[in-house]
Amino acid sequence: MSLLAVGSVAFDDLETPFGRQENILGGSASYFSLSASRFHPVQVVAVVGEDFGPEHERVFEGRPIDLKGLVRKPGKSFHWKGSYGYDLGEATTLDTQLNVFQDFRPTLPESYRVAPYLFLGNIDPALQLDVVNQMIQRPRWIALDTMDYWIRGSRAALERVLREVDILLVNEGEARALAGEHNLLKIYRKIQALGPKILVIKRGEYGAMLLSPEGVFASPAFPLEDVFDPTGAGDTFAGGFLGYLAAKQSTDVNTLKHATLTGIIMASFTVEKFGTQCLEMVTEPDIKGRMKAFSDMIRVNGL
Amino acid sequence: MSLLAVGSVAFDDLETPFGRQENILGGSASYFSLSASRFHPVQVVAVVGEDFGPEHERVFEGRPIDLKGLVRKPGKSFHWKGSYGYDLGEATTLDTQLNVFQDFRPTLPESYRVAPYLFLGNIDPALQLDVVNQMIQRPRWIALDTMDYWIRGSRAALERVLREVDILLVNEGEARALAGEHNLLKIYRKIQALGPKILVIKRGEYGAMLLSPEGVFASPAFPLEDVFDPTGAGDTFAGGFLGYLAAKQSTDVNTLKHATLTGIIMASFTVEKFGTQCLEMVTEPDIKGRMKAFSDMIRVNGL
Repeated sequence: MSLLAVGSVAFDDLETPFGRQENILGGSASYFSLSASRFHPVQVVAVVGEDFGPEHERVFEGRPIDLKGLVRKPGKSFHWKGSYGYDLGEATTLDTQLNVFQDFRPTLPESYRVAPYLFLGNIDPALQLDVVNQMIQRPRWIALDTMDYWIRGSRAALERVLREVDILLVNEGEARALAGEHNLLKIYRKIQALGPKILVIKRGEYGAMLLSPEGVFASPAFPLEDVFDPTGAGDTFAGGFLGYLAAKQSTDVNTLKHATLTGIIMASFTVEKFGTQCLEMVTEPDIKGRMKAFSDMIRVNGL
Repeated sequence: MSLLAVGSVAFDDLETPFGRQENILGGSASYFSLSASRFHPVQVVAVVGEDFGPEHERVFEGRPIDLKGLVRKPGKSFHWKGSYGYDLGEATTLDTQLNVFQDFRPTLPESYRVAPYLFLGNIDPALQLDVVNQMIQRPRWIALDTMDYWIRGSRAALERVLREVDILLVNEGEARALAGEHNLLKIYRKIQALGPKILVIKRGEYGAMLLSPEGVFASPAFPLEDVFDPTGAGDTFAGGFLGYLAAKQSTDVNTLKHATLTGIIMASFTVEKFGTQCLEMVTEPDIKGRMKAFSDMIRVNGL
């Protein structure tokens, strides 16, 4: 009954106005699985190089994260170098080395092919479709993340895989690029026509917006005094959102609202330290405590 | 028991990607009073020229809007010309003609000087302070709007009037310029030190954020399919927000949350047509209906 996640496990060099870190564990599958596994068991499909050692594997140990699908290849892992300005908005990519990721072609272990929930992290849409085609039975839902690079460069392949997708998670710029529209309600109609019935817009410091056939919802971000590093916030959000949905076995609108808040709370931890550091350390009482504070904040009595 | 509002009554030339209009009624006091008067009686202090005719006065008739403080002077009214790009974000000012506004020095009619609620619209901070000093008794609360022009150019005068202010309403850029900080929680602490105990951040299509000693709240905007003209949205928000607070005679945190939602709903009408057109026509059932839809949208059961 796992949530299957396909994505990248990488090493990042990060520069923010508050400091720099080199060779820290990152990648969409890392953030996603550390976040989602707080709520539901996760199976990971990704590729790493010889630089992925026992100290990195240990990060995922003792959690309901199945690494049977983590393939080890000769060479180095995917490496990304990025920097952020003072507003901690969009990252500037300084260097990308695909390394073992170059020829990555995800092959699902037998036990993964019946997963009822599937998250296709931000990789080549042709590979995302290939994963869908390896499933023995159609998952209850399939969620997908993508980015400008694929929207502009691999439109046809992306549209093919989107036909299979139930939940699309993107940021505002990506949603606009995909739909060729500025207005979010118009964007939602165009994206529904492409396949996904549920659209989640990740808005960074403005939180997230949810568009579903049962209605629209938007939540602010959890206000933080100190944001250090936004890397992985989107994947952490997706992990919290989809992990919560998988645990609840429902996609009714109120469950989707709670899932949105859960994703926001998980992402609020990620951005407080470099890399996956905070996500590794945070305890269940931390998560529950922050969710309680957030609930008190956004609750309006007598609504 | 009125809400006293000081600001501008102007004529605007507006260009948006959806059309253009010339010489339409605008100004902060117009939008504010048309919005606030849906909830509480308003007294207006502003200046107009000879071009302000009976057809313009009629817009305010039949509403609890007292125009005793609307001064008529020889010459033309304040005239603003602005344009918006496709994203309908910040306006580009194409032309500003102060006209009668140049020498405006608000003088409060006797009956205005005991108003329990005071809104100081975005005018010269020296004039805002002058209005405060004309009050016979200290209002229960004083709210203030300002802009970059005064924050950068009249800092000392602005700081003087802010010492008298309870509620500051600004957009994000203005809050950052005033506090010299990027993070909103840090901004709030600096602004509290300047005087205002309640800070309302107007965020346009992202809604609004409220920071009060009792906690932080943020609401998304009401999602609209068609936004025509954002002119006056901020003043309309302030009118709904402060009109609601005045009507409820409270500033406890749950009242402040409802006031925020009220401001957002009122602003959502303003942006649907040019100028004050929608604000003039909208009925009480329209307002209640949209508030109901918004409540259903943002309510999370089991929070």
